[in-house]
Amino acid sequence: MVSALPANLAWDQGVLRVLDQRALPGDVRYLRCADWTDVRAAILTLAVRGAPALRLAGAYGVALAAADLPVPSDGFSAAVEALAAARPTAVDLAHGVRRAAAAALGQADPAAAALACARRLHAEDAARCEGIADLGAALPGLDGWVLTHCHTGALATGGVGTALGAIVEAHRRGRVAGVYACEARPLWQGARLTAWELGCLGIPCRLLVDGAAGSLLASGRVGAVLVGADRIAANGDVANKIGTYPLAVLARRHAVPFYVLAPASTIDAALDTGARIPVEERPADEVRAPVAPAGVDAYNPAFDVTPGDLVSALITESAVLRPPYRFTPTGHGEA
Amino acid sequence: MVSALPANLAWDQGVLRVLDQRALPGDVRYLRCADWTDVRAAILTLAVRGAPALRLAGAYGVALAAADLPVPSDGFSAAVEALAAARPTAVDLAHGVRRAAAAALGQADPAAAALACARRLHAEDAARCEGIADLGAALPGLDGWVLTHCHTGALATGGVGTALGAIVEAHRRGRVAGVYACEARPLWQGARLTAWELGCLGIPCRLLVDGAAGSLLASGRVGAVLVGADRIAANGDVANKIGTYPLAVLARRHAVPFYVLAPASTIDAALDTGARIPVEERPADEVRAPVAPAGVDAYNPAFDVTPGDLVSALITESAVLRPPYRFTPTGHGEA
Repeated sequence: MVSALPANLAWDQGVLRVLDQRALPGDVRYLRCADWTDVRAAILTLAVRGAPALRLAGAYGVALAAADLPVPSDGFSAAVEALAAARPTAVDLAHGVRRAAAAALGQADPAAAALACARRLHAEDAARCEGIADLGAALPGLDGWVLTHCHTGALATGGVGTALGAIVEAHRRGRVAGVYACEARPLWQGARLTAWELGCLGIPCRLLVDGAAGSLLASGRVGAVLVGADRIAANGDVANKIGTYPLAVLARRHAVPFYVLAPASTIDAALDTGARIPVEERPADEVRAPVAPAGVDAYNPAFDVTPGDLVSALITESAVLRPPYRFTPTGHGEA
Repeated sequence: MVSALPANLAWDQGVLRVLDQRALPGDVRYLRCADWTDVRAAILTLAVRGAPALRLAGAYGVALAAADLPVPSDGFSAAVEALAAARPTAVDLAHGVRRAAAAALGQADPAAAALACARRLHAEDAARCEGIADLGAALPGLDGWVLTHCHTGALATGGVGTALGAIVEAHRRGRVAGVYACEARPLWQGARLTAWELGCLGIPCRLLVDGAAGSLLASGRVGAVLVGADRIAANGDVANKIGTYPLAVLARRHAVPFYVLAPASTIDAALDTGARIPVEERPADEVRAPVAPAGVDAYNPAFDVTPGDLVSALITESAVLRPPYRFTPTGHGEA
């Protein structure tokens, strides 16, 4: 369904080709990663980003390491550790790296085994995205224009994306007519990536500054708000890109459904509420750029927490869940 | 009280010196306006902006025209019309121009009379700002850190500003400790101008992206939200910079006072509700810059409308008004 969109990660005769997200939307160009250090550099420099995409890049990186180094060997172990640590906060990256390394060990052809694992993870993520898109596209409120925040599309995953994947599928089914996309300051993922993906797919997109979502929701032009999630607590509280919580509050005020779409693995039932989700504060430079006085201080949390009671539904690859949410570590079902 | 802040408009031996706001915060430089066409150019190019500041610039421009042209004459009339029309949507500009032109007509020294009028308007605006600052600085909730949006400071007026003037005065009184300033996309008035003014005044400032106001208000770190207004309807609905309405909704949710500070002349009692306030949609380029794909569409209203019932108090130069608001064309008092 996303044939018009360039692949973010493509294996091609022993080389991993990585779509350089830093150059978007201006240029569509690929980095050619011929060994594992190239993959690590692509991860370190944010050429590839998005937790599911990092999981896959890490696994492909292990396949390249296994082609160049004996398995097992100190060199291979060092490569695995270096890949896993390239982005220390992304647990998905370490997960993909370790899965591929475990698959390589003890095999007659370790590189082929690691590659097969990476491809399996890739296919699994694509299937998860398809599940989310299929369930999400059937939600009430998706006829006409919808509103989304940040970037939750194909670039960030191994498939069609999460919230944006569902929107794209709903458009394919003749429901969604177009997408209002918040720009997502300070890093512009909406303006740079969501607008670009929708453009590639030929889906109408109207960009807005994050502060304009209030008047947009008040205007009645939006049938639903769809966002992703970075972590979900046991009570349904959702940590997601900064600016998500105001959208949820405004959507409730104007009786617009507010949907969170994410793989079930995003649910961290060990945390009872969102208050226990650690929120990363990022450098002031992100807010200062490009116009503020040098040296002015900034308040720059990367995420905010939306109370579960504002989430009209939580859509995973296997279920549409509704509040009240009470997740347990053993199963991610409804209370 | 703002001696550390460069004047935005200064009359100096027959020349109007205009602080070039386009160069802020990088450079503090003045345009030397020696005749009325220089003033018109400064207005057209947004070197001077802010409705009260435009009213004064227009009046000073008439004084320059009256120094070079016979009064009355076709040339003088043409200059007056050209100044008044330089920003057609700013009624304050036309008001200042026509007041100064009327003062010049029939006088032995028309240029001196127009200049005296401009200086009177300047002093009147400074007094209005002082009144707002004095009443505003006494409001509940201003101890500690406060939140503001866009730019409502000295640069935009003939005095200390409106909401920002009250904040500065509350800081002088030992109440406000620092200011959280929303950056105000798409034109960055918060990042560029508010942060700069506070820096000049030595008042602590933390900049935030507009979407971060939700988590900030939820955190309990903000004692009050103070904003200005572009137009206020008879029922207290407030049109102000895009992004104001979400702040009002979030402030109410977290029981933080939400104050609107503006001269009484901002109240347009001829409009029964905010639904009748025309909201200007501005070019998509403002939103696209600097990172979005060329050609992507945008939703870019310059203002939004906050329902009067979310406004904890409306502070003019002469009164602190509380809801319910019911203004009449003859008097701007409480219902």
